[in-house]
Amino acid sequence: MARIVMKFGGTSMAGMERIRNVAARVKHVVEQGHEVAVVVSAMAGETDRLVGFCKEASPLYDPAEYDVVVASGEQVTSGLLAMTLKAMGVDARSWLGWQLPIRTNEAHAKARIGDIDTIDLLASMRSGTVAVIPGFQGMMEDGRISTLGRGGSDTSAVAVAAAVKADRCDIYTDVDGVYTTDPRIVARARKLDLVTYEEMLELASVGAKVLQTRSVGLAMKEGVVVQVLSSFDDPTQDDLPGTLIVSEEELEAKLKEDKMERQLITGIAHDKNEAKITLTRVPDRPGAVAHIFGPLADAAINVDMIIQNVGRDKGETDVTFTVPGADLARALDVLESQKDVIGFNRVIPDTKVAKVSVVGVGMKSHAGVASTMFKSLADRGINILAISTSEIKVSVLIDEDETELAVRVLHTAYGLDAPVA
Amino acid sequence: MARIVMKFGGTSMAGMERIRNVAARVKHVVEQGHEVAVVVSAMAGETDRLVGFCKEASPLYDPAEYDVVVASGEQVTSGLLAMTLKAMGVDARSWLGWQLPIRTNEAHAKARIGDIDTIDLLASMRSGTVAVIPGFQGMMEDGRISTLGRGGSDTSAVAVAAAVKADRCDIYTDVDGVYTTDPRIVARARKLDLVTYEEMLELASVGAKVLQTRSVGLAMKEGVVVQVLSSFDDPTQDDLPGTLIVSEEELEAKLKEDKMERQLITGIAHDKNEAKITLTRVPDRPGAVAHIFGPLADAAINVDMIIQNVGRDKGETDVTFTVPGADLARALDVLESQKDVIGFNRVIPDTKVAKVSVVGVGMKSHAGVASTMFKSLADRGINILAISTSEIKVSVLIDEDETELAVRVLHTAYGLDAPVA
Repeated sequence: MARIVMKFGGTSMAGMERIRNVAARVKHVVEQGHEVAVVVSAMAGETDRLVGFCKEASPLYDPAEYDVVVASGEQVTSGLLAMTLKAMGVDARSWLGWQLPIRTNEAHAKARIGDIDTIDLLASMRSGTVAVIPGFQGMMEDGRISTLGRGGSDTSAVAVAAAVKADRCDIYTDVDGVYTTDPRIVARARKLDLVTYEEMLELASVGAKVLQTRSVGLAMKEGVVVQVLSSFDDPTQDDLPGTLIVSEEELEAKLKEDKMERQLITGIAHDKNEAKITLTRVPDRPGAVAHIFGPLADAAINVDMIIQNVGRDKGETDVTFTVPGADLARALDVLESQKDVIGFNRVIPDTKVAKVSVVGVGMKSHAGVASTMFKSLADRGINILAISTSEIKVSVLIDEDETELAVRVLHTAYGLDAPVA
Repeated sequence: MARIVMKFGGTSMAGMERIRNVAARVKHVVEQGHEVAVVVSAMAGETDRLVGFCKEASPLYDPAEYDVVVASGEQVTSGLLAMTLKAMGVDARSWLGWQLPIRTNEAHAKARIGDIDTIDLLASMRSGTVAVIPGFQGMMEDGRISTLGRGGSDTSAVAVAAAVKADRCDIYTDVDGVYTTDPRIVARARKLDLVTYEEMLELASVGAKVLQTRSVGLAMKEGVVVQVLSSFDDPTQDDLPGTLIVSEEELEAKLKEDKMERQLITGIAHDKNEAKITLTRVPDRPGAVAHIFGPLADAAINVDMIIQNVGRDKGETDVTFTVPGADLARALDVLESQKDVIGFNRVIPDTKVAKVSVVGVGMKSHAGVASTMFKSLADRGINILAISTSEIKVSVLIDEDETELAVRVLHTAYGLDAPVA
C-alpha cells in the first residue's frame, strides 16, 4: 500500500465524460489498496472564460476579487469528481483550499504555498475516503482566497504530496511522458523512462511544457517523486508507461539496478519566446554594465545570455543580451529611461531568435558536449548568436527560422533518435 | 443616512454589461451617503448549467458535493461585482458565505439560515466599504458549504438585512414591483405602492413569483422592510417607483399619513400548478379522513382544499382535495399504498384545474368579500369546484381553461382596474 497524489489537468477534466474517466482511474488505484488524494484543474477553457469576465470588468481588475472569481473553476471540478466517485461506490469528499486550509503568502493571483494543514485530511484519507482537492487555490492569512498563477495546479499537487508525505505524485496530462525532444519536430523522439529534477527544470524552462517549472523546483526541494502519465490511456491499466522524475541519486540507483548506461544527453529543448536586445556604443568603462543590468533586475526582468562585443571604437562597445519575449516591451522602457545613465547610442531589439539547448546530467562527467554541439550546427551552416551554459545544459541562440533544423541535427548528433521501427 | 441591503437576481447579473449597470445603481445609493451591502445571484442560466453537470455525474448526486458545485455561481458574480465597483471608484469587497460566515443548519441543498456573524462585516461597511455577498450559500457547522434551495438569494438578502439591522432590503428584479394581478392577463393591472407581509405571502404562494415565499416569511418574522424594484430602470434615478412590503401597522400609519383609504382587496392571484384528487366511495365513519390525510402529511405533501361530498350511498362518501401539481405522482403512490386502510373505490386525479384567490388585509374588517366573488363568477358561468379561505384570502378552484376570465372578472369586480389612460 502506498500513499499517492494524483493530479489531472484541464483537458482531463473537460466535461462529465472525461471526469468519469478520471474517476475510473482513481477507482482503479484505490482498488489496488492505495491511499489517494486527487488534485484537479478547472475544465479546459473555464479559467479563460472567468479571466475574460475579469478583464471585461476592468483591465486593471482587483487581484483579490480576481482570485474569488477564478478559483471557482477548480471548486466546480472538485465537487463533480467527488460526487462521480461516490456514485461509483468510492468514498470521496472535496476539500477546498480554505477548508484544509492550503495557506499561501499574501500575493493575490501569484501566491506561493506555505503550510498545508493535514490532520483532518490524513484522518479522512486513512479512513478510506479519497480526498479531492482543487488545484491552483489557497487561502491567505486574512482568510481570503488566493490563487497561484496560471498552471499552478501542478504545484498544488506537489505541495499536497509533500505535505502528506506521499510515496508518489502522479501528474496525468494530455501527453504520456517527457520526450527527448518535441515529437512534432522529431518523429523519432523517444519517451524517457527517467529524468532528474535538474534536467526536467532545464527542459521545462526552455519550453518543454509538460510540467510547470515551479512544481518541478518544489518537487526537487521536497524530494517528491513525480511521475508524468497520460490521462487518456485505459483507466484500468496497471503500470501505465510514463516518465519518472527523481533525484540524481535515485537515477543512479535505478540505472545500476537495471544495468543501464547513463546517457550523455537526456534531451533537446527549444524556446522561441526569447528576445535579443543590442545596445550600441556603450562606454567601455568600469560599472557600465551594472548601469544596464541593475535597472533590469530591479524591474524583475530576467536576463539570460550576455555578450560584450569587442569595442569598435576606442572606449566604446556593443552589448547584446536576451530577455523573455513577454518582457521585451518593459525592458525597452527601462533602457530608454536609463539612456543618459548608461550612455548607449541605439537599442536594437530582435524577436526572430530562438534558444536551443542540450540538457543532461551526464555532461557533468563528460567533456566535449559543447564542442559536439557547435560542430554539428556549424556543419549545417547554422550561425550561433550567443551561448550560455550551466552544469547540465548548453544553450545557443540562433535565428528563429533554423530552430527545427537545429533540434533535428542535435537529436541525431547525440544519438537520441529512436531505432526505426 | 440609512443602512440598505440591495439584492440583484440572475437576470440583473447576466453578463458584465448588466453587472456594470448594477454597480452604477449601487454607486448611486452609496453616493447618497448610505451604508450598503449587496446580495447577488448567479448569472441567469449558470445555476442550471451547474445543476446539469451534477445530474450528468449521477441522477442521485451527493448533496454535499452538489452544494460545492452550485455555490460557485454566486461566488463568481460576487467577485465580479466587487471588482467592478472598485474600478468605478467605490470601495468594495466580497464576503463569501464561509467567510462571514452565514451559518445554516445541516441540510445540504435546502439549508436554512441560522446566525450570521456581522462584527467584521459591519466594521467594513462602517468604514465605507460596500459588502458584496453571494446569495443562496452558507456554511454548515462542520465547515462545509451549504445552499438554500433554488431562489434562495431573496432569503439570503432578507437574512443579511435582519442581521445588520438594515433600514430596508431592496430587492431588484426584472419587474418593477408587485401588481394587483398578472399584467399579462389584465392590461389594466396596477402596481401596488404598499403591500403587507401577509398579503405578499398569499400572493407569492399562489403564483405571483416576484419574491420567494420563504424570504417574505422571514422578513415578516424579523420585521425587515422589503422593497421590490426594477433593476432595469435608470440606475441614477432617485426614488425609483417600486412596491414596499411592510407590516399591517406600518401600512395603517402610511395610509393615515397620506390620507388614503384602505383598499378592500389588494390583489388577485392565480395558480395553475394545483392538482385535484377525488377518492370515491370512502367509508363514512369516524377516523376515515385521518387515514387519508395522515399518510399524505407524513410524506410532506401539502393538502390545501378539502370537500367531503354528500354521501351517495348509505355509509359511503366521496372525498375531493387538492395538492401541489409537483406532488401529484407521489400523492397517488401514497394513496394506492393505503388503499386497503382507507377503503376507497377509485382515485380520480385531475390537473386541469386552477386556483384563483382574492387577497387583502382589508377583508378582515369587511363582510361580503366572498359573496361578491361567488356572485361575480356565477354571473359569468364559472363553476366553483372547491373553496378555501383564510383571514385575508378567499380561494376558489375552477376549471383551468377559465383562469384568465376569472382573474379579469374579479379584478374589475373589486374595483382594481387602473383608470383608462
